[in-house]
Amino acid sequence: MKGLTFRSGRLQIAELEAPKLATEAVVRVLISGICSTDIQITKGYSGFEGVLGHEFVGIVEYSPDNPQIAGKRVVGEINVGCENCVFCRSGDPRHCPDRTVLGIKGRNGSHSEYLTLPTRNLFLVPENVSDEEAVFVEPLAAALGIAERIELKNAGRIAVIGDGKLGLLCSVAIKSLGADVSLFGRHRTKLEIAGKSGVETYLVSESPIPKREYDTVVEATGSVAGFEMAMDLVCPKGTIVLKSTYAGKAPIEAWRIVVDEISVVGSRCGRFGPALEWLNRRPVNLSALISEEFPLAEGVQAVEMAQKNGILKVLLRNN
Amino acid sequence: MKGLTFRSGRLQIAELEAPKLATEAVVRVLISGICSTDIQITKGYSGFEGVLGHEFVGIVEYSPDNPQIAGKRVVGEINVGCENCVFCRSGDPRHCPDRTVLGIKGRNGSHSEYLTLPTRNLFLVPENVSDEEAVFVEPLAAALGIAERIELKNAGRIAVIGDGKLGLLCSVAIKSLGADVSLFGRHRTKLEIAGKSGVETYLVSESPIPKREYDTVVEATGSVAGFEMAMDLVCPKGTIVLKSTYAGKAPIEAWRIVVDEISVVGSRCGRFGPALEWLNRRPVNLSALISEEFPLAEGVQAVEMAQKNGILKVLLRNN
Repeated sequence: MKGLTFRSGRLQIAELEAPKLATEAVVRVLISGICSTDIQITKGYSGFEGVLGHEFVGIVEYSPDNPQIAGKRVVGEINVGCENCVFCRSGDPRHCPDRTVLGIKGRNGSHSEYLTLPTRNLFLVPENVSDEEAVFVEPLAAALGIAERIELKNAGRIAVIGDGKLGLLCSVAIKSLGADVSLFGRHRTKLEIAGKSGVETYLVSESPIPKREYDTVVEATGSVAGFEMAMDLVCPKGTIVLKSTYAGKAPIEAWRIVVDEISVVGSRCGRFGPALEWLNRRPVNLSALISEEFPLAEGVQAVEMAQKNGILKVLLRNN
Repeated sequence: MKGLTFRSGRLQIAELEAPKLATEAVVRVLISGICSTDIQITKGYSGFEGVLGHEFVGIVEYSPDNPQIAGKRVVGEINVGCENCVFCRSGDPRHCPDRTVLGIKGRNGSHSEYLTLPTRNLFLVPENVSDEEAVFVEPLAAALGIAERIELKNAGRIAVIGDGKLGLLCSVAIKSLGADVSLFGRHRTKLEIAGKSGVETYLVSESPIPKREYDTVVEATGSVAGFEMAMDLVCPKGTIVLKSTYAGKAPIEAWRIVVDEISVVGSRCGRFGPALEWLNRRPVNLSALISEEFPLAEGVQAVEMAQKNGILKVLLRNN
């Protein structure tokens, strides 16, 4: 089978052995989404080598422990825990110290014809959720995961920085949960996508950044400059929710965290259940987030495209 | 009157005009403590110029709005707010955007024969609290202020890093509030001071740093290496309470905050009321924290001494 692999600094479509029918479920991938994390991995983040990709929708081909699931359409939680540590035992393998992570850590990913995951990681996709919606479950869960880390109802005035895929999803997710939110970004057309969902939007090139005006600021730009802007926007005793993973050591004015008694709250993955429910209710149409679609065989070009200015989600489709 | 001033990069004892009897209370300083912040200011932190010092005990010489307080022994809250902003109106001028701060921002400090503060900033010192104890109210309030920023009873296993003045105070303050706490430091003799109060202590040169073992880690080393160590010690979903103010932009692996979903909670000043009560109850004897005492006239030498390895609190006394 074909897979988009990153090895020894090189991204390519490689011919791989098909997964064995063993202890994990085998999923035939229908669509796989390219995430900024994939791009960061190609730049050295996390040191991962193997098949990239962790956002997918597919059809179960085989499950050793639940044969009834075969033929069903699924998405999958990307963290695979040891099942023994304190996190796994509490039902949250996202922080298992020995976890593998689909296409990110110790486990081949979804930019491939087939992938494997434990059956317990798979979630059935409701019938009225399309493939093109279901492929957003993972990033949508990450956006909704903010509500696991802070209490939105006590979050006061909320700003999101960054009008890339993650920032847009965070802003529409927060808005859909009933909170008012402002989105700061650099691209008028991208901001308009969130604006259609009732998010207040600000083009940073047009309006000066209001200082210390927001109780909660979600940093989703992916660049350290975004963190500085978050510290400008947030009020004393406010909260910065950090979604961006800056590679290496980021130069940060940490003294401002102390002087202004700010809380910086890291937020990574979310739960798939609430994200699937969200898609089922469909409070917001996500199709505007899809910029391009490529066949898997053109995965290298797809990753190049995903890095272009103005491009949002790029999908890989198996034919 | 004499005062220890920092101007144009130079620290010296200068002859200053005595404060006028005007809108603020005038306090004759008895003892003034040298803080690490004073030393940081002499290295460029905050850009402050003027009389240094913000930890003091003194006698009120004059108060325009409460003449009965004259002759009384007092300590003083260091933040002077505008009285109009949202923070001042809520009774917390520590985050007033227009605040001045004694010996740190826009206001001459306490390493001087006299200082002025609004009468509302002054707190009477109970009779059975000595001058040498009262001079610790400000740093003790900062240590106890941790309990304003996190709920100690839900803080799980707590570690403090740094066996300087602030780390020692934080560890004994947390311990005295009923929580178990471990202190990590580099000096056996300093660790012993906290050990006498029941704090578990670890000499970092002797034992390997336990990884991801603490739910809450207080970073009080004053060096960026301490932040890295805090990220090693803290468990996923744990909390780092940041007390250290690193000058400039500190290189920090911020991605770990996201991946491990850590909360970094800044903590600066505390309230004087609880700190005075604490001293009145005297759960811990702080005298072991005093290393040296100098007359004010030898303030420059005192600041030099305060920077020496192994030295804790250095006091300046007015004769």
